[in-house]
This record gives sequence, structure tokens and C-alpha cells, in this order.
Amino acid sequence: MAKNKRTAFFISDGTGITAGSLGGLLAHFPETEFDQIRIPFTDSIEKVEDAQKRVANAKMMTGSRPIVIMSIGNEILRNELKAVDAYYIDLFDSFIHPLGIELNEPALTRPGVSHSIKTNQYGSRMEAINFALGHDDGMTHTGLNQAQVILVGVSRSGKTPTSIYLAMQFGIKAANYPLIPEDFERGKLPPILEGYLDKIFGLTIKSERLHSLRSERRPDSTYASLSNCRHEIGQAEDLMKKVGIPTADSTSKSVEELSAIIIQFMKN
Amino acid sequence: MAKNKRTAFFISDGTGITAGSLGGLLAHFPETEFDQIRIPFTDSIEKVEDAQKRVANAKMMTGSRPIVIMSIGNEILRNELKAVDAYYIDLFDSFIHPLGIELNEPALTRPGVSHSIKTNQYGSRMEAINFALGHDDGMTHTGLNQAQVILVGVSRSGKTPTSIYLAMQFGIKAANYPLIPEDFERGKLPPILEGYLDKIFGLTIKSERLHSLRSERRPDSTYASLSNCRHEIGQAEDLMKKVGIPTADSTSKSVEELSAIIIQFMKN
Repeated sequence: MAKNKRTAFFISDGTGITAGSLGGLLAHFPETEFDQIRIPFTDSIEKVEDAQKRVANAKMMTGSRPIVIMSIGNEILRNELKAVDAYYIDLFDSFIHPLGIELNEPALTRPGVSHSIKTNQYGSRMEAINFALGHDDGMTHTGLNQAQVILVGVSRSGKTPTSIYLAMQFGIKAANYPLIPEDFERGKLPPILEGYLDKIFGLTIKSERLHSLRSERRPDSTYASLSNCRHEIGQAEDLMKKVGIPTADSTSKSVEELSAIIIQFMKN
Repeated sequence: MAKNKRTAFFISDGTGITAGSLGGLLAHFPETEFDQIRIPFTDSIEKVEDAQKRVANAKMMTGSRPIVIMSIGNEILRNELKAVDAYYIDLFDSFIHPLGIELNEPALTRPGVSHSIKTNQYGSRMEAINFALGHDDGMTHTGLNQAQVILVGVSRSGKTPTSIYLAMQFGIKAANYPLIPEDFERGKLPPILEGYLDKIFGLTIKSERLHSLRSERRPDSTYASLSNCRHEIGQAEDLMKKVGIPTADSTSKSVEELSAIIIQFMKN
């Protein structure tokens, strides 16, 4: 069956990150194919008019009303934009203004409020990214005591992107440490991790997926061979079970899902 | 003036990422201090009841109705949750269901649709992260032709977190390359970057901020001294201007804002 096609615009007077993040909700409609277009920094009448032309053009090209998810603080610009025929989801009208009534506080309407450098978490998020990069793949042995969580797993099990996501999104300092054959032979975690058991979380992965990921990096190597992947994962899972580390599988879970699980673990 | 205090819950049957991303909207209310609490994976009646207790408790502790931003697909669970007194922003009722009517397609209601590993962009985002990490700080000289954008700037001007954000959020392959005194003496970009001028974007930063960032890494070094920072930045800005590279200042702009500007540049 041919999919329905729609253009989805994310139009904002700032970065468009907040409006764009609602793009995830479009995944609830798998029968519709969305062409997603971001138009940030729409903060003047000229830019609104440019955006209007693109919305009108998309309607002409697809034959369907575009979806417009918009976050524009200035009421005049907001209403002007909506003069073109489209299906509008207006974050100011439907979320921010009603929330302001509940809070008994008028909303700031200047552009770029949501993702400015001045938010409380910004500094700690940047610090956490530096920490994750500095403690990637066991590269630094110092400062593990500062880590809020330490991810372990075999090479290419998803530790690095998960560490970075935890840092970027939540400002969580995540170190990661590889499990290698030497650890399996000893039947213990790497010695450097001793004393940190309560903040260690394990990532595992299906052998076929690991084989495919490692083959991209080193094709036709022993490292990437399916039999070696099976062997390493079996040993890593045995070890993590033996020492009592909670684990999650990166084969079927996105970094967003893994991070949410890890944060739950950190709270317990 | 004492700030108003409110607890803001983000309750989801999935990761809570989509609901949580609306947390940016709370920044529009600077007079209110929000205690933000995420409750992901709320996909059973027991978990809904746990969440209800936490919402009711927050109301009791603060004396004000909590704000609850919720994304729960199951209608029974959704209505059950809302039995507790709070100010609800329900993404399904106010956003997804009306959108489904516009699209003439019923919404998927199973949990975890928005941020599963199955979304189109997931693979390319992970690939872009590997690319950014493999092309950080000029560490790899090969594959620059695959980069969609190359960030340049002096050490600690914000290249790495911006590259990673572009990859993580948008799946954009961003390499980054440091500008060093040798480049300034020659008055040219690093030779390896020749031929890529149309995809090079420069980051700059105020001397005082650079001094502070570098002092964290190497306190009391020449590298971190204010006079050296001033000198390097002056030279880097002259060079970028001379070769005609667009620039943005990371002192006052978040990685979200820098990324939005860089994406605009890439489109031109």
C-alpha cells in the first residue's frame, strides 16, 4: 500500500529544538510518510513570510495540508504565520499560555528561551560530555570516583553512545569500561572497578549484531568473527551475572531507552 | 523575591524523552522554580498507582498542584493517572489524537514508539556519532570527504560538543579540526582542509571564557593564560575572516543554538 505523504514543518523563533522534539510523536502514525523540515530563527515578518511560502508550496506539491508544529513567542508573528492553510500545533497557544494561567505568571515571549546557554543544566551537561569523552573505553583510570554510573560491556556493545547520550541529555557523568578476555579468565571485573560495584551497569548485545558492528570496523578479523563474538558475549554475560550487575541489551534498545533504564537503576 | 515552587512530572509509558523535551518550555516561566521528575516506563496499573502517589505527595509537600506532562498511549491508564489533582498536559489527548483525525489514521498506542531503535534515523545517528568521535580534534585525516560539515577553531572553543550534538540529534556527520599557531603563521587553514572550504564553519569564543575553560584543563599554563587566549583568538578570527569562513561565538550560544546556525549554513 502506498503511504500517505505529508510535510511536517517545525517552525520556531529559536533553535527549533523543542518543536522538533515533538517530531518523535509523528512515529505514532506509521502509515504516513513525513517529510520533516525545520525552520529555526523565524523571528521577523520577513522570515515568517518565507516560512509561509514554503508551507504553501508544500501543500501545492503534496496535495495535502502540511502539519506545522510551531513555537513563536510574538503573537503578531504567530498569527501572521497561521494565515496560510495548514494543520497547526501551536506550542504557545496550546501549552505555554494555558500553563502560564495555571502558574499565574506571564510567559516570556522572547525567542530562544528554551535552549539558551543560561539554563541551569547547561554547564553541567557540557562538563558531563567532557567527562564521558575523557572516561571513554577505560582510557583514564583516575576520576572514576566522580562517575555517577560506569557502563561495562564488550567492545562495540553500545557503551560510548549511551555514555554520551546520558551526558548530553541529562548531564550525567558516565564512564565506560571495556570487558576483555583477561577479565573473563580471571572471572572478575577489571581491578580498577573494584569498590564501584553499586554504580556499574552492563550492556550486552546479540552476537549477530555485534559481528555486524565489528565487521564494519575490522572486516574479516578474528575480533569480528561470529564465533568470537558469541564466545565473548557468553563470557561477559556469565561474568556480569556472577558479580551481580544489572544489564540491558543494546540490540533492541535505542540509546534513549537504555538511558532511561540506566537512570532508573541509578535511583535504586 | 522568593520564587514560586512547583513540581513538574514527566510521565510516560516509554522513555519519557518526548514528554521530557517539553521541559524546555518551563524555561518560559523564570519566576517559578521547577523540581523536575521523570517517571518513564509507566505502562501498568501498578506503575500508574506509584506515579499517582508521587504526584499526590508532591502536592502535599509544596502546597501547589504539580504540573504533569504525560505521554501514555493506553486510554485506561491515562484516565486513571489523571484521577489525582494536578495540572495535566496530556500529549495523547491534546496532540496525538487530534493529529490522527487530521491524518485520518489512528495513532499507535503501544509504549515506546517515539524513541525505539526502529526509527529511520537511528542507524544514521549512531553512525554519525562514531564519525564525530573518529574525526574529533583532527585525529583522523581520512574520511574528511564524508564529513557534511567541518568545524574549526582554537582548542576548547566548543568544537567537540557541537559535533557530537549535531550527530546525536540530527545524524549529521561533523568532523572538527583545531586551528593552531602554525596555521596562523602560515596565514592559511591546515593543508588537509584544502578543497573543503564550502563545508567549513568556524567557532570562536571570548578570551575570558576560553581562559577559564583552559584553566580547568591545565591551570597556570601558558596555554591557558589570558594573554595567550587573546592572542590565539585574535589570530584565529583574522584567519577565518581572511579565508571567508562563517563563524559563531560559543560564549553566548548553547550547542543547540550553534547547531541550528550550522544547519542553516549547511543548507546554503
